Amino acid sequence: MRLMSTVLLGAVLAGCQQPVCGDCGPDAMPPEPAAPTETAAAPDFTNIPDWRPVDPENLLLIETQDGTVAVELSTVFAPNHAARMRDAARAGFYDGLSFYRVIDGFVVQGGRGEGEGTAALEAFPPLTREFVAPAEGVSFTPMIDPDHYTDTVGHVDGFAAGMNAAGDEVWALHCPGVMAMARDNDPDSGDAEFYIVTGQAPRYLDRNMSIFGRVIDGMEHVQAVRRGDRNIKSGVIAPEDGPDPILSMRIAADLPASERPAYEIMDTRGQAFHAAKARYRNRTHEFFYETPPAVMEACHMPAPARRLEPANASEPVTP
Amino acid sequence: MRLMSTVLLGAVLAGCQQPVCGDCGPDAMPPEPAAPTETAAAPDFTNIPDWRPVDPENLLLIETQDGTVAVELSTVFAPNHAARMRDAARAGFYDGLSFYRVIDGFVVQGGRGEGEGTAALEAFPPLTREFVAPAEGVSFTPMIDPDHYTDTVGHVDGFAAGMNAAGDEVWALHCPGVMAMARDNDPDSGDAEFYIVTGQAPRYLDRNMSIFGRVIDGMEHVQAVRRGDRNIKSGVIAPEDGPDPILSMRIAADLPASERPAYEIMDTRGQAFHAAKARYRNRTHEFFYETPPAVMEACHMPAPARRLEPANASEPVTP
Repeated sequence: MRLMSTVLLGAVLAGCQQPVCGDCGPDAMPPEPAAPTETAAAPDFTNIPDWRPVDPENLLLIETQDGTVAVELSTVFAPNHAARMRDAARAGFYDGLSFYRVIDGFVVQGGRGEGEGTAALEAFPPLTREFVAPAEGVSFTPMIDPDHYTDTVGHVDGFAAGMNAAGDEVWALHCPGVMAMARDNDPDSGDAEFYIVTGQAPRYLDRNMSIFGRVIDGMEHVQAVRRGDRNIKSGVIAPEDGPDPILSMRIAADLPASERPAYEIMDTRGQAFHAAKARYRNRTHEFFYETPPAVMEACHMPAPARRLEPANASEPVTP
Repeated sequence: MRLMSTVLLGAVLAGCQQPVCGDCGPDAMPPEPAAPTETAAAPDFTNIPDWRPVDPENLLLIETQDGTVAVELSTVFAPNHAARMRDAARAGFYDGLSFYRVIDGFVVQGGRGEGEGTAALEAFPPLTREFVAPAEGVSFTPMIDPDHYTDTVGHVDGFAAGMNAAGDEVWALHCPGVMAMARDNDPDSGDAEFYIVTGQAPRYLDRNMSIFGRVIDGMEHVQAVRRGDRNIKSGVIAPEDGPDPILSMRIAADLPASERPAYEIMDTRGQAFHAAKARYRNRTHEFFYETPPAVMEACHMPAPARRLEPANASEPVTP
């Protein structure tokens, strides 16, 4: 299987990370630590492949003026909201609407500007909140690192996630790239208006929003979306000022095989991700004058994604 | 004094922050808490104005294809590096060079791509590291919040900053918008190549780099700079692939008064900033279904900046 383009979102993985490039060849890459120890007991990686395919039914493709943004929908955290996005995308609800509220360093919000999409909304009534999900049956891989916002952080299915002290609830964290449903004060008022987090993780929103996906490719196109002024109508761009359009939203499974992009995500339960976390924490490269504390924040390492060549794309799991 | 455009970078200040806008009028803004208590002892705000002007000698203006980026140079953290940027900008060193290493979610790096600027570099020999600064004489306003990377975090002159346990060293934190000098493995090898942090704060670089400034306006233009592929030469964009140019870099003091932008920064020692931090921590708005923990991370609230109308711009402090 050949890689057409490898996208490693977020943190330090294969690449040389120092902000200078004179010595960025393979020789200068930080050596892997001899013995990564994520937990006291050695985790069992048996039967967990390093990468897993993205189900084309969960692959949302947002066309912007700058390029295509690929989002993996979660079936764990907010399944009804993910289903809503699938339905609304398939109905063409978003095509031609706009990214109408955009605050640099916070969110790109879209889908229902003033007067936009109102008629079509009748088909998409408000949804009951999915702020947390039952932990039962969910594979949560804890991190050893502390967190300011909750008891335990870790990963679920590629998403940075939190778990409560009782261990019976999980939720996705508000890390950059996360996609969630906007709402009014009523927690059960989200319908079809979404936002994508673009800035330093606004973790205070954790457990207050229904997070249904995360960007796995094309985050640079989200960053290129035209901004509003956060002090004028909270970042809303008036229609006459020309907010960027949402050209279209599609579900990858609906595209002809020849046009359908395919991705793999590093399995956050697996050995490769485990080793990547250990490398993040243990920076032994001679570049470091001061050895950083051996800590990693949950939003520092979204699961890497890689795009496969179309010819090798697998068939949709759910056609 | 009238405001032409108010730029509140980063965190939740005046604006309504919930990612939905149906109720974003003034009525929906979170009420200010009755009694902000930043420290056990009530801080003394006597003689500290809420805002201070930016010295035009410390105002670096970077022209990109997308717009102007305004950076305030620090005279505290890395004065020799700030002086280098002033000198190199004045010499026209950067004009026509490129943003040649750009990794989404990490940094925009520029100033000396392969073969770029080499001859002119003779005038700018490597500088001795300025990774930390003596705390003596520096006004450090501590936060009450915990931090994963150091003993105490707080603010110095608008920058999020760290302080060691002994209290004799301070340094700027690697928050989004921070501008620093790139270097090779030799800690004393930085000369004129810079980077601007664009992603989730890479705090592991704290005390390893000479931070000399931070973006106070135009971060959206930094986010619009063309990206490289982090897996190809660590994000370096080959000259034939057309990295975005640095059109020019200027020091505001050198511009005619009529063209010179002027900014004010919220004084991080003052009452307004103190209250803003308290509002960030204490979210009592009815929007919140789950009350967030009363915590603020150091990179969540860069000091707000606002641009003044040219007619009201003050004269350069150091012409």
